[in-house]
Amino acid sequence: MSFELLILGSSSATPAHQRNPAAQVLTFNDKNYLIDCGEATQMQMQRYKVKAHRIDKIFISHLHGDHYLGLMGLLSSMHLQGRERELTIYCQPELKDILALQFQVSDTALRFVINYQFFTPGTEVLFEDEQIRVIAFELNHRVPCKGFLFCEKPRQRNLIIEKVQNAGIPLDFYQELKAGKDYCDNNGLVFKNKDLTIDPPASKSYAYCSDTLYQESLIPILKGVDLLYHEATFMHDLLDRANETYHTTSLQAGQIASKAQVKKLIIGHFSARYKDLNPLLEETKSVFAPVYLAEEGLVYNF
Amino acid sequence: MSFELLILGSSSATPAHQRNPAAQVLTFNDKNYLIDCGEATQMQMQRYKVKAHRIDKIFISHLHGDHYLGLMGLLSSMHLQGRERELTIYCQPELKDILALQFQVSDTALRFVINYQFFTPGTEVLFEDEQIRVIAFELNHRVPCKGFLFCEKPRQRNLIIEKVQNAGIPLDFYQELKAGKDYCDNNGLVFKNKDLTIDPPASKSYAYCSDTLYQESLIPILKGVDLLYHEATFMHDLLDRANETYHTTSLQAGQIASKAQVKKLIIGHFSARYKDLNPLLEETKSVFAPVYLAEEGLVYNF
Repeated sequence: MSFELLILGSSSATPAHQRNPAAQVLTFNDKNYLIDCGEATQMQMQRYKVKAHRIDKIFISHLHGDHYLGLMGLLSSMHLQGRERELTIYCQPELKDILALQFQVSDTALRFVINYQFFTPGTEVLFEDEQIRVIAFELNHRVPCKGFLFCEKPRQRNLIIEKVQNAGIPLDFYQELKAGKDYCDNNGLVFKNKDLTIDPPASKSYAYCSDTLYQESLIPILKGVDLLYHEATFMHDLLDRANETYHTTSLQAGQIASKAQVKKLIIGHFSARYKDLNPLLEETKSVFAPVYLAEEGLVYNF
Repeated sequence: MSFELLILGSSSATPAHQRNPAAQVLTFNDKNYLIDCGEATQMQMQRYKVKAHRIDKIFISHLHGDHYLGLMGLLSSMHLQGRERELTIYCQPELKDILALQFQVSDTALRFVINYQFFTPGTEVLFEDEQIRVIAFELNHRVPCKGFLFCEKPRQRNLIIEKVQNAGIPLDFYQELKAGKDYCDNNGLVFKNKDLTIDPPASKSYAYCSDTLYQESLIPILKGVDLLYHEATFMHDLLDRANETYHTTSLQAGQIASKAQVKKLIIGHFSARYKDLNPLLEETKSVFAPVYLAEEGLVYNF
């Protein structure tokens, strides 16, 4: 299994230069996770053929408009398109009030249930199943704000099928072999797991840091992830402005990626002042080379 | 002076086929009036070069999301772009609550004042100045909903300058001549206004009917307008669906236009089920010929 990340929005607060506010879809094991939902996310989903009915979990990092204003429209469209399956939104508690007020005023009784799971302070596991664990962690922004870490769980070991068959291991022990166990036959003869299986591919991980001050406390959380999305609202000559607005510069995003030894970095959340984004990319590259710009519509596989 | 109408959105509740939810900009006498503000209106304004800072009055017909969800993003961007000039929003009272909650949660203290003018029942003058009068009237929708009538005030009469000079009318009486008054000189000699002036061009008018059941009570209000925008969500084979959802069919929109003897009609608010809109246009044309589709980006001058 692999992750696929589709960027739907790459602008910061004010959309500009055909760039839309924050939204992205992470696909893993045939499930779509929507991460942030800025204005016009549903239009971007249509443009890039993302099926709304395949989204069951939505993660909203914080309640600045450029990260959630598309949610009401998306939920309304899901309703009008006949959705009945439950949906979970991971968010700050106030989002429920905002949505509830708007549904009430528009006299809308949703056909599907929204489960709200509110963030608690600190680092927490938001959800996990057999394949994935999703963790929320604190960012440092002007309002409460969370980053998200999506970790694939360790995969099963791969059987060396010829050796397994030669050793006469019964079929009903194969799952345990895959889980790493040795096999002991009726005569007490032990077959070591390491002789019958090979390591699975390494588990993958993705981290999302939406809006935050440069924050070295993030390094242990982001350590070694396969892909890091980190905001880079300003270039480093506007460090004062970045600090004042609780944002990161393109240089600092590279520094975090470098210090956390991530494999690849995507920078996004670009200020409207930058029409040409290459200077931001070059600035990040000066400290961390495997970096890409968040380009709307592009899919990053990893 | 003339009106210019720019359509920014033409879809009904669910955006589809690259069509956006309701929004349009009416320009008159160098002022932009924003009428409804569906999701992504600010992006559409950027696409079609509408200057947000030239909008001082916003009219929101009703509180279904496809008519107002773009407002929070637009107001936030105005704030971030440094707007200080007051803005007036004509709306249902609950819109103020919705916006206030979102500004509070995002910890935003706007740099400019929003004046809310709430609708009262029935037909009312929302605002007028020397050139224009804007009237709100009741539509018949699932939630309280208003239509808008923009009427140019009668223009000044045009002086026949040669006759005015030959008659020796003093300069400081010219304004009164333009207003239709006769002139009486010191000897008591009366110069009839009709001999010194000619009629001004007829005053123009525009009516906007966003979401409504077919409603013959609208006919006296819409009587003879130069341009009528009327919703036509469904074709007439879905009349039951139109009635059930308090909408109008493309046939009925033509019937209203015909009965109200309007000069031209634009139909819009198209259901997502129609990719090709020509059948709706043809259906309307069968009863009212001077009709256009609301096409996003097109400007209608009248």
